[in-house]
Amino acid sequence: MLGLLMMTSIIPAFFYDIPDILPLLYSSLITIGIGLLSYFFTRSSDFVLSKREGYFIVSAGWLIMALLGSLPFVISGHIPKLTDAFFETMSGFTTTGASILTNIEAMPEGLLFWRSMTHWIGGMGIIVLTIAIIPFLGIGGMQLFVAEVPGITPDKLHPRIRVTAMRLWAIYCIFTLLEFILLMAGGMDWFDAINHSFATMATGGFSTKNNSIAAFDSTYIHVVITIFMFIAGANFTLSYFAIAKRDLKKMFFDQEFRFYTFVIVLTGLVVAVVLVLKRGYEPGFALRDSFFTVVSLITTTGFCTKNYEEWTLFVKIIMLVLMFLGGCAGSTGGGIKMIRHRLLLINVSAEFRKLMHPRAIIPIRHNHKIVSSEIVSNVLAFFYIYMIIFIFSSLVMLALGLDFETAISAVASCLGNVGPGLGQVYPWGNYAGIPDFGKWFLSLLMLIGRLELFTVLILFSRVYWKQ
Amino acid sequence: MLGLLMMTSIIPAFFYDIPDILPLLYSSLITIGIGLLSYFFTRSSDFVLSKREGYFIVSAGWLIMALLGSLPFVISGHIPKLTDAFFETMSGFTTTGASILTNIEAMPEGLLFWRSMTHWIGGMGIIVLTIAIIPFLGIGGMQLFVAEVPGITPDKLHPRIRVTAMRLWAIYCIFTLLEFILLMAGGMDWFDAINHSFATMATGGFSTKNNSIAAFDSTYIHVVITIFMFIAGANFTLSYFAIAKRDLKKMFFDQEFRFYTFVIVLTGLVVAVVLVLKRGYEPGFALRDSFFTVVSLITTTGFCTKNYEEWTLFVKIIMLVLMFLGGCAGSTGGGIKMIRHRLLLINVSAEFRKLMHPRAIIPIRHNHKIVSSEIVSNVLAFFYIYMIIFIFSSLVMLALGLDFETAISAVASCLGNVGPGLGQVYPWGNYAGIPDFGKWFLSLLMLIGRLELFTVLILFSRVYWKQ
Repeated sequence: MLGLLMMTSIIPAFFYDIPDILPLLYSSLITIGIGLLSYFFTRSSDFVLSKREGYFIVSAGWLIMALLGSLPFVISGHIPKLTDAFFETMSGFTTTGASILTNIEAMPEGLLFWRSMTHWIGGMGIIVLTIAIIPFLGIGGMQLFVAEVPGITPDKLHPRIRVTAMRLWAIYCIFTLLEFILLMAGGMDWFDAINHSFATMATGGFSTKNNSIAAFDSTYIHVVITIFMFIAGANFTLSYFAIAKRDLKKMFFDQEFRFYTFVIVLTGLVVAVVLVLKRGYEPGFALRDSFFTVVSLITTTGFCTKNYEEWTLFVKIIMLVLMFLGGCAGSTGGGIKMIRHRLLLINVSAEFRKLMHPRAIIPIRHNHKIVSSEIVSNVLAFFYIYMIIFIFSSLVMLALGLDFETAISAVASCLGNVGPGLGQVYPWGNYAGIPDFGKWFLSLLMLIGRLELFTVLILFSRVYWKQ
Repeated sequence: MLGLLMMTSIIPAFFYDIPDILPLLYSSLITIGIGLLSYFFTRSSDFVLSKREGYFIVSAGWLIMALLGSLPFVISGHIPKLTDAFFETMSGFTTTGASILTNIEAMPEGLLFWRSMTHWIGGMGIIVLTIAIIPFLGIGGMQLFVAEVPGITPDKLHPRIRVTAMRLWAIYCIFTLLEFILLMAGGMDWFDAINHSFATMATGGFSTKNNSIAAFDSTYIHVVITIFMFIAGANFTLSYFAIAKRDLKKMFFDQEFRFYTFVIVLTGLVVAVVLVLKRGYEPGFALRDSFFTVVSLITTTGFCTKNYEEWTLFVKIIMLVLMFLGGCAGSTGGGIKMIRHRLLLINVSAEFRKLMHPRAIIPIRHNHKIVSSEIVSNVLAFFYIYMIIFIFSSLVMLALGLDFETAISAVASCLGNVGPGLGQVYPWGNYAGIPDFGKWFLSLLMLIGRLELFTVLILFSRVYWKQ
């Protein structure tokens, strides 16, 4: 499948740049070949999938995809070093959008198209991962959100999951197409429009321009992309109900969606006020740029129209904090995710009640259903381990000699699958200057973050190998 | 009681500086007067203490102590501004050790003695708070540690608590006396020795010297203070068993104590290696300075012998992280505390097991006893709210115009009751340059941190006032 999708990148190569046809062709043939071999060698085995294998297959699958996906960059010689090509491709498939390219516009169009497509494929993978595999593995309270998805029971893979996945993918494709049309209507050429639609719906962030969305001097385009980033960061199941079933109520009464909207509106307004008062922005532009940036970082997309590093230190740190929020569960967004933050906040407020009424039983509810204490403890463990990884990895980056802002923001950004950060990796910067070991390490962080921590980390645990 | 203790500060004033006798005398008389008035007006009321009043009394008590305790500084004119005097005294009673003084050595000895004594009184207060009041209020998993203390049941104040408190205070006094003798044996004069003993045992950090412990160029003194900081950061109940009952096993098999020791040894060695390799320290001095600083920050004392800001960026950030650890429960140390971090880590590892064995029941144990899921959820809520306060307060400090390092480290340091931080508040710096609002805000953070968050925060919650 990956090889076939890779082959479609040859189409834009025909329109623009003939030289990158052959590398793309070779790479897709190698990928198809390896795929067919593995298929024929494993087809006959009568194998019941356990959770144990589940963790390994998901993590290894993403890793192999990143390795094969980097072939076109290496073979074409446009990203000759495997470290760089792997980083770029992992960043693509994990929908992070962190780039080592110093001059994006110098890349041939076929390769740029493939680069955006890694985002789009990654986004598709995340949708099926969230609705089918993560709940099956029982990770990080994601069981919660799937209670709403028809045909999913947390204990086994149900045949209707295939149907659900198809439906959500259809919604994903419809939104991509819609954004493509709206961007072209705003004057973007078809190539840029398709690339940016891929990157938006996957909450990825790869652009075909060195200056990201700032290259398009059009409020219309900025607003369209803001809206689609917002959609991509919301739960696709709710979008499905809203569009296919015309049931908007489900979306508007969903507590995670309300929390997500509330946080975006509040932060967007605060940042806009600072821009007006401290940076002399006109109110209209302040709102446009503030909401673009806030939505881009909360949804972990990572598109930029401005360098938020220049928006006062106060705003800069808000931006860093936003990288720890993440989109909704069931979106293509990464990070800790809104549902977890909401549960953590509710748990705090429940503790206050318990202090006043020690004998009362205070259940934690989400969407009016009681959340089991196991899920709460799972979410809390997720948060604690996220913080430990962040601190430990920041120290690793500092030990490699990076400056403080680059080190902590690169880690926060890669772990949260955002893309840009501060310092060297600020909006107009890139990851090219990170030492090789750092690039591999950050690639691993992207994978860990994308697969909800536990899926990857459990492979390094004693309990996994003891049996 | 506070007034009588304040009066003892007149003794050193006699030896050194006559001018500060009158301010100390007036202040203590005012304090005693207010105390007697409140006693006679409330004595007759037949009042059963509920948890509700408990929170208010503890928070208000600390606040009133800080207000009355700042009288000598204001009346003497040595710290004329109430903002500064209040900050300094709150920093004393909460055993933080953050100072607004730019020239400590210019202060008269009577006032310096009172300043150190606020630490020592605060430390005594914390001991009784931890064994009697916090478990009674049911805050943040502190019930756990008191399971070991004789005569304490979590539900009500038992008469034997008075006995237990007396015993622990006796241990506290013995250690203070012992340190005093050992410091004098090392050549410190009696005044410095008593002040530094007060500040060490309370894990406070106020020194009588501008250069803190660096003023004493003696490895012996550095080592003695390191050892007593380590003791002050450990559970006093365990010290009681070790000394009064000659039961050292209780201490060595206590899982929190082992974790505390492990973290200190590991961090101390890592920092020492960096000092040798990157800063050219001799191994002996590297170990001495590294362990002094690591113990000082983990126990939240805040004494300094070196400027750790110059110890590479890597070490500097480790120092910042240490401020989030804190001593053991039942010590005079502040911060999140070792027992909580240990539980949080165990909870993460339990989650990994659950992922592999979904149907298994995996209890969380501390000292071989099962920890109830309520306590775990309470500890987790504590950690999340600690992080939220840290981030929110850092943004407040940034909004006041402070630089990034000063803002986040001042917040981490005050909330964790440590003292020094980075930037403006680095080891040889002070809090004088923080804007007035910032000083009041940081004083509040010290109080919130010292009283285990919930005690103060609940007063701001809706559930407290609704009834």
